[in-house]
Amino acid sequence: MNSKFYAVILAGGRGERFWPLSTSRLPKQLLSLVGGKPLLTRALDRLKGLISPDRIYVITNRDLIAATRRAVPGLSQRNIVGEPVGRDTAAAIAVGGALVGARDSEAILCVLTADHMIGDLDVFRGTLRAGLEMAMREDVLVTIGIKPAGPSTAYGYIESGKSIGSRRGVGFRQVRRFVEKPDAEKAKRYCTSGRHFWNSGMFVWSVRTLSAALQKHRPDLAVMMRELTSHAGTRGFQVALASHYRGLEKISIDYALMEKAENIVMAEGEFSWDDLGSWTALENQLPKDALGNVVLGSCASLASADNIVVSRNRLTALIGVKDLIVVQADGVTLVCPKSRAQDVKKMVERLKAGGRHGEVL
Amino acid sequence: MNSKFYAVILAGGRGERFWPLSTSRLPKQLLSLVGGKPLLTRALDRLKGLISPDRIYVITNRDLIAATRRAVPGLSQRNIVGEPVGRDTAAAIAVGGALVGARDSEAILCVLTADHMIGDLDVFRGTLRAGLEMAMREDVLVTIGIKPAGPSTAYGYIESGKSIGSRRGVGFRQVRRFVEKPDAEKAKRYCTSGRHFWNSGMFVWSVRTLSAALQKHRPDLAVMMRELTSHAGTRGFQVALASHYRGLEKISIDYALMEKAENIVMAEGEFSWDDLGSWTALENQLPKDALGNVVLGSCASLASADNIVVSRNRLTALIGVKDLIVVQADGVTLVCPKSRAQDVKKMVERLKAGGRHGEVL
Repeated sequence: MNSKFYAVILAGGRGERFWPLSTSRLPKQLLSLVGGKPLLTRALDRLKGLISPDRIYVITNRDLIAATRRAVPGLSQRNIVGEPVGRDTAAAIAVGGALVGARDSEAILCVLTADHMIGDLDVFRGTLRAGLEMAMREDVLVTIGIKPAGPSTAYGYIESGKSIGSRRGVGFRQVRRFVEKPDAEKAKRYCTSGRHFWNSGMFVWSVRTLSAALQKHRPDLAVMMRELTSHAGTRGFQVALASHYRGLEKISIDYALMEKAENIVMAEGEFSWDDLGSWTALENQLPKDALGNVVLGSCASLASADNIVVSRNRLTALIGVKDLIVVQADGVTLVCPKSRAQDVKKMVERLKAGGRHGEVL
Repeated sequence: MNSKFYAVILAGGRGERFWPLSTSRLPKQLLSLVGGKPLLTRALDRLKGLISPDRIYVITNRDLIAATRRAVPGLSQRNIVGEPVGRDTAAAIAVGGALVGARDSEAILCVLTADHMIGDLDVFRGTLRAGLEMAMREDVLVTIGIKPAGPSTAYGYIESGKSIGSRRGVGFRQVRRFVEKPDAEKAKRYCTSGRHFWNSGMFVWSVRTLSAALQKHRPDLAVMMRELTSHAGTRGFQVALASHYRGLEKISIDYALMEKAENIVMAEGEFSWDDLGSWTALENQLPKDALGNVVLGSCASLASADNIVVSRNRLTALIGVKDLIVVQADGVTLVCPKSRAQDVKKMVERLKAGGRHGEVL
């Protein structure tokens, strides 16, 4: 294991898309939706042999620190950092950069997500290693694009340019631009263009390159990163964090950096990847019964097909229904057609706005 | 109050139609679906001023005695009798007849249901009184027919014959025959014929007339009724009950008596009546929101119309669904289109057959 390699795992999810199973107190990354382990635990497991746990940082929000520690008991408590409030990915990455930079100003870090599904682990790890080595040699911001498995309208895309060679069997390309979630027609074109890749939200860069890019495009975050670097490991860290966060704008790393910087390259990720963006994602991850139902937990059904049922500790009885999502959680049941899975977020927002059922959001 | 007047309330429901809220341990008559009181309590309340509680008997099954007592605390414990097993209505009525006959061999008793909704209480009570008086004067079996409020296919019908006059404003008619649940076309004809009435399952007769009819058409039940009469109020009663019930055929009073006897008259019931035969019955009994949803309990909905939601102690969240029944009960959630409400029974039978979830059936 290369001692220059670090990982920062972003684990600040708000628990809206898998509501009511996920909540602000138990967001998606802490759920064991697939494979019996929380997604965050799996994200850590994927790094075994590549990055030492001592060099992995998890950025979550302050209220989730205890639950996060339980999900990754192999991680030292000082490697789990809680944000006082959520300020989107750019701020969280700057925090991670500071923690890593304080350990080693010449470190290379990959920024990973805590709540996605990744298959073809060897390919994933090969891609990460190639990205780390690339970022160690060159002053570039590496973004990992995923070769589209289909014409998804749920993801943003990276439109790549010329190939700039390959390393360890992983292709690297120039980046032309970032594209928002497309409509169905565009998605179809992107899927076959050979130039478009899904924007996975995973990055690799050196502390030095990250710091310089922030300095150029988001000086406020560069200032924070420097100050947090100097306070890392001291009591002043949390104070400085709280003080900076108070004034920060919410901005994603895509808007803050990736759409502006010029020294970006894309690694071609040829592994399977799913951001588990809604309940319907479970259909790709779990087996179906003879009538196409995906069931987690206990379900009795009569003449019911193609449903997604999550019913732990309760029995769900379906009669003559099709294409429904039915989810049981403590105190709440959701019933929603699969075609409206994206509206689960709206429901959570509405319940929050109404001040109702605070205990289940 | 006429001291010859008695009531026998049949309260032996098995709790299948309103599953999962109703179960074998908490059948429909013990649920407070409407108006904040169990249906059985309401059935008793309807008799106030007409029949003294001392002369009202409730026939339930043995396992429900404690719960039944709680629902009708105004009733003496000896007026609540538990059947060792369910043997349908004919047997239960013979038991009631025995208890009443032991008190007064010249008594008149009305047989009433514990789990139906009845409106227009004054009309109902007037009909009952007229029936009781008719049964006191004449050697007839009075059945109460309900003037159809619509072309229901969910009820059996009584085809009446000539009018035989009226009493207290209540018309009485000869009975031509009993008709099974009709198809939609027949139901439409019945609804406007003026001769067809819903078979409510409510009857009035003297102990003497009941006893003679059973002797003629179901001698086994007549024997049991006589024996139970002689044991009423003694320890021998339960022993005799268990011994007779063991060998009894399951048969309804309609098949056992009403379709065979010749001295039947029908009282025209001009009150509103609903047997609450399935979840969809709630739509006629409860108010709807602006989008046509009927909600008991806590429900948050987005773009959802014409649903029936029962969600006590839990939140049900609906997104974009229509014409569904969603019912939350301890440990179970049912999701079923309104058009398949009749299949709830099938689900219960299937779960029973599978030996699964005994705790919720």
